[in-house]
Amino acid sequence: MPRPWLPPLAAFTALIVVAAASAPLHADEGMWTYDNFPSKKLGEQYGANIDAAWLDRLRLASVRLSNCSASFVSKDGLILTNHHCIESCLAEHSSTERSLIEDGFLARSREQELRCGAQVADVLVEMQDVTAEVLAATQGLDDQAANEARKRRLTALESACEKSPAKGRRGSALKCQSVTLYNGGQYFLYKYRRHTDVRLVFAPEAGVAAFGGDPDNFQFPRWCLDMGLLRAYEDGKPARIAAPLHIDFAGPAEGELVFVSGHPGATDRLLTAAQLGLLRDAVMPPTLLRASELRGRYIEFAQRGPTERRITQEPLNGLENGLKVRRKLLDALLDDELMARKRREEAELRQRVSTLPAFAGIGDPWSDIAAATATARALEQSSTFLEGGAGFNSRLFRYARVLVRAAAERQQPDSERLREFTETSLPRLEQQLAAAVPVYPELERLTLAFGLERMREWLGPDHPVVRRLLATESPQALATRLANESKLGDPAIRLALWNGGQAAIDASDDPMIRLARDVDPEARTVRKRVEDEVEAPTRVATEKIARARFAVYGTEVYPDATFTLRLNYGTVRGWTENGTAIAPFTRLERAFQRATGQDPFRIPASWLAVQDRLDLQTPFNLVTDNDIIGGNSGSPLVNVRGDIVGLIFDGNIHSIAGNYGFDPRQNRSVAVHPAIMREALDKVYAAPELLRELLAR
Amino acid sequence: MPRPWLPPLAAFTALIVVAAASAPLHADEGMWTYDNFPSKKLGEQYGANIDAAWLDRLRLASVRLSNCSASFVSKDGLILTNHHCIESCLAEHSSTERSLIEDGFLARSREQELRCGAQVADVLVEMQDVTAEVLAATQGLDDQAANEARKRRLTALESACEKSPAKGRRGSALKCQSVTLYNGGQYFLYKYRRHTDVRLVFAPEAGVAAFGGDPDNFQFPRWCLDMGLLRAYEDGKPARIAAPLHIDFAGPAEGELVFVSGHPGATDRLLTAAQLGLLRDAVMPPTLLRASELRGRYIEFAQRGPTERRITQEPLNGLENGLKVRRKLLDALLDDELMARKRREEAELRQRVSTLPAFAGIGDPWSDIAAATATARALEQSSTFLEGGAGFNSRLFRYARVLVRAAAERQQPDSERLREFTETSLPRLEQQLAAAVPVYPELERLTLAFGLERMREWLGPDHPVVRRLLATESPQALATRLANESKLGDPAIRLALWNGGQAAIDASDDPMIRLARDVDPEARTVRKRVEDEVEAPTRVATEKIARARFAVYGTEVYPDATFTLRLNYGTVRGWTENGTAIAPFTRLERAFQRATGQDPFRIPASWLAVQDRLDLQTPFNLVTDNDIIGGNSGSPLVNVRGDIVGLIFDGNIHSIAGNYGFDPRQNRSVAVHPAIMREALDKVYAAPELLRELLAR
Repeated sequence: MPRPWLPPLAAFTALIVVAAASAPLHADEGMWTYDNFPSKKLGEQYGANIDAAWLDRLRLASVRLSNCSASFVSKDGLILTNHHCIESCLAEHSSTERSLIEDGFLARSREQELRCGAQVADVLVEMQDVTAEVLAATQGLDDQAANEARKRRLTALESACEKSPAKGRRGSALKCQSVTLYNGGQYFLYKYRRHTDVRLVFAPEAGVAAFGGDPDNFQFPRWCLDMGLLRAYEDGKPARIAAPLHIDFAGPAEGELVFVSGHPGATDRLLTAAQLGLLRDAVMPPTLLRASELRGRYIEFAQRGPTERRITQEPLNGLENGLKVRRKLLDALLDDELMARKRREEAELRQRVSTLPAFAGIGDPWSDIAAATATARALEQSSTFLEGGAGFNSRLFRYARVLVRAAAERQQPDSERLREFTETSLPRLEQQLAAAVPVYPELERLTLAFGLERMREWLGPDHPVVRRLLATESPQALATRLANESKLGDPAIRLALWNGGQAAIDASDDPMIRLARDVDPEARTVRKRVEDEVEAPTRVATEKIARARFAVYGTEVYPDATFTLRLNYGTVRGWTENGTAIAPFTRLERAFQRATGQDPFRIPASWLAVQDRLDLQTPFNLVTDNDIIGGNSGSPLVNVRGDIVGLIFDGNIHSIAGNYGFDPRQNRSVAVHPAIMREALDKVYAAPELLRELLAR
Repeated sequence: MPRPWLPPLAAFTALIVVAAASAPLHADEGMWTYDNFPSKKLGEQYGANIDAAWLDRLRLASVRLSNCSASFVSKDGLILTNHHCIESCLAEHSSTERSLIEDGFLARSREQELRCGAQVADVLVEMQDVTAEVLAATQGLDDQAANEARKRRLTALESACEKSPAKGRRGSALKCQSVTLYNGGQYFLYKYRRHTDVRLVFAPEAGVAAFGGDPDNFQFPRWCLDMGLLRAYEDGKPARIAAPLHIDFAGPAEGELVFVSGHPGATDRLLTAAQLGLLRDAVMPPTLLRASELRGRYIEFAQRGPTERRITQEPLNGLENGLKVRRKLLDALLDDELMARKRREEAELRQRVSTLPAFAGIGDPWSDIAAATATARALEQSSTFLEGGAGFNSRLFRYARVLVRAAAERQQPDSERLREFTETSLPRLEQQLAAAVPVYPELERLTLAFGLERMREWLGPDHPVVRRLLATESPQALATRLANESKLGDPAIRLALWNGGQAAIDASDDPMIRLARDVDPEARTVRKRVEDEVEAPTRVATEKIARARFAVYGTEVYPDATFTLRLNYGTVRGWTENGTAIAPFTRLERAFQRATGQDPFRIPASWLAVQDRLDLQTPFNLVTDNDIIGGNSGSPLVNVRGDIVGLIFDGNIHSIAGNYGFDPRQNRSVAVHPAIMREALDKVYAAPELLRELLAR
């Protein structure tokens, strides 16, 4: 099933997932920025004419959701994405009695469409190169000072941008975000039209959206109707979209040239060997162990009864997806051949750079990074548990930390704040605090007790924070008390604290607020150490390497993924697995044959009821060799005419290792075929108006 | 807390954990066999006179339990070992209402002593070198044939040995087991006096036996009274022990020479780099992920209520111990320096062997092993789930498999059977089947559903066995049905099937027996492939390497651990951790200061009640630099006079990596100090008769 972008679990991953310019290319790989798309090469290779107008149209119909990709598919703001990308909205409208994830949803009128409180839909309207301004701000400073100055400058640029009248702006807000490309080889301001009123229109049942569940996740052949429809609103009315994408329900032919426009979350293709070693040894194994144990706790909790099963479904799905991804990432990192190749590439670049007079003073940035990763190893666990989400693993705690820190940070000048509390970040935080997302105390107890128990295990019972928190209470008792007594599940209470500022925080006796206040000094301390001792020297060193790379390999390269809009091309084709050819299309018939009647191989009743009226030869899923990664979930797969011929929802198992390098022989994207969408909307869900809207030109 | 021997979780670990002769020694490392103890070197180094009589006395007082070590400490058969080594016996006498693990136990008379149904106590009475006979049996055969012939010969030797009248035999049974030392450089028959009637005499509460629980496990400083007392019986009477060990309750001095006599389970100090790579990449990560998830399931299950907590305690303790061990083993394997060192040592040995004319025809055994490990990688998951315990993770299933296979194997000639069903193995199997160990259906459901879910994940939903078992039932539903409907929890029913042979098995409609019958063909197939394609070529190649190693490095070396009796020496001393000196002794006072009142830092009420009468300066735990590993749990720590001055129960965290090589700077053994045993038996448990028995000369 899912390929949402996985925000890094451990604090250090975030730091070392810096973008890197790529080495010379092979095959059709590449997550290209729209301003550097290799149209010329594509023309030579495929005879396709991809001009600026074509690119602009596709870009303006491409949508970024909170952690997924999507596209506009009607003039009335209809957004096509994956079912697993809207699971959090479905969960938001579920309860202990009813699960929209299980049951699906169809709004039969605009009035029935349900607001997704925490969702946004961003459209990239402009990209502005600000590299020169950023470099000017850091010139001549030492590592730490440069790190601070860079952040301040980017904050100021974002803030000024949002205050200026921007082209393409209508009723929706303008959102400006700085983007670091090519390891600091380039800095950009990306300007988005942001829709904050996004509503749920359609979702099939999880039984067919994620047919095969976790066992089939990242597998192919597949049979998943992993689709969902949202609608963007402006001023209470459906947003008007000038040029939505058309869906070509016939789908693509085998071998056809296809494009993916979407937001790959993060790749690590050009980390140094030292950084890969950090991931392999110190980040991935503990992260995987935590995820596995939490999975076990969720699964056993869900055995208590139907209510527990319902409320566990969404967090468990996300967790299992992340677990599978990281398992394969660890496998890739354990491949000594990958490490050897990285070392060879590194040695070659170092050697070539050493011959360039312009780089005589470059020093040894690779060793600088190695030194920083040694520090990162030492800080990894305390950072993960105190500042990352591993220790205080609770939705209520996350609210509390945002509230506690926002109160303090908002008293600082904009440029001095922690980056997530700058003025331009506040509206999104407020939206998230205001969203009426259900909080289940028993789940809070489960995740928080888990986090506290592991914090005690990894930081040790004698760590000051552990000792203070658990002096007289067990982790389970403390977690139970906090989950039951905190009132932060109520949006009104959250907003009161948000609006009340430091005085309200100081006066609060909410136990979760008190906990967040209590541990904040230690959490900030370790964060600061990471920023100063790991992030700062790493950033300086990676900038140097990026410049060296440009000098040696030129600019016909693409940056590592950064959850910003990218375009790539490929073709519809299968692959060979252990000598067996895998065909690129699946058909509906086999899904019925494969069903066992038991989750996760249970086809929903809605489909069984109309089974004899369905065209069993309808294409269901397909694979292409486009170069994608988590975050590309929900991306439109378009043909050379710019029409949608598929909906990306997954990669095959080999694609996960694509994080470190693309292998055209085996890496495949998996998409929903448009024909099954039409068959479903027409015969299973009887949604003629939706179909009409999708078919309108 | 615990250091019982960890039987390998994955089938392949068992194969590659073959003994290896060690490279030249450093410091006081070495798990020496009693027939090759370096008394001369010790005399030179420490001036100690360790003669044959000294060795014989210590050997005959050393005891091997099912998966731990122990020693005789009274003429009436009293056995001193660890609390965590007798947890399974405590669990055997516990129920949903009462936990002897939590409450502790003290028999105030012989009549109150409780039989440990599944326990044995072995004393090593003779070691016979049978290398020549084994080599003669395999001469000139190809790998697979040699593998079969070797097993047949060892079976025949064991069988003949048990039928012969042996010296030192009394009322107890003679148990003969073949032992492979030095990678097949030597084969021995070890002859044991086996006590099968072993009873529980004393156990403190888990709260003090495992004070600090999992967070403190493998840590030091520590405060654990990890002791327990059993008694061996013969013909219904306490066994008469001619020369038990005396306990010197004063304990040792810092820097004093001390010995550990016990049964280290397994070390991997001289695996080839290819074998270490297999462990690092293909065995450890999935094993750890499974253990972590199961841990989460147990912990969440235990939250349901006191009954669930009680019945979960014993399996959870064992699991958490194994998890911590394997985590540190993976850390050690991820140390590229270890791998580089292994490769260097390998290269040096290869180079030196290549100059020896006698080894001209040796071929390339290192490459042979690498080829075998490649096969092992491919078979690892199917073997683990179908033949190993990972898939059918259930006590009832294990009974069922033994019964189903025993019925079939017992129809074969002794030498043709699977090794665990030879005639000499049957009494122990029957004892285990007859033991009235409580089986809790809810725990069976939990572990079996877990195993089935992961089997589906790792083997895939289309694997024939998965498809057959889960065609119409979910893993949870199937596991629930099997756990509730199987009658194999009843020893009488197990024994009826055992005695009824194949006819009884064929006629049984017990669902667990049917499952074991159903999956046996596939399980046997993968096992056979492992034996023929991994074990056989590996065994031949490791024999060659062992001979080469003897030729190059001589015979003043010790073999890898094999859960057979070993003796090693060292001194009482602390170490330096991150620049901080760790003193070798702890005292009672600090335990009270460290207690939080909450598990696992809750001191039992029995201690709190007499707190003011206790000598708070009593030494509690101590560390030495003896070279131990899992399986050494319960070993006596003796001084140069052969008196007990400590009870080994753990190693420090660095000691875990000792699996791959001993580091005298940091590896430490952790022992219970005799003074705290006396203080506890005297003032806390008021057991004057026990103390009198321990003090008697």
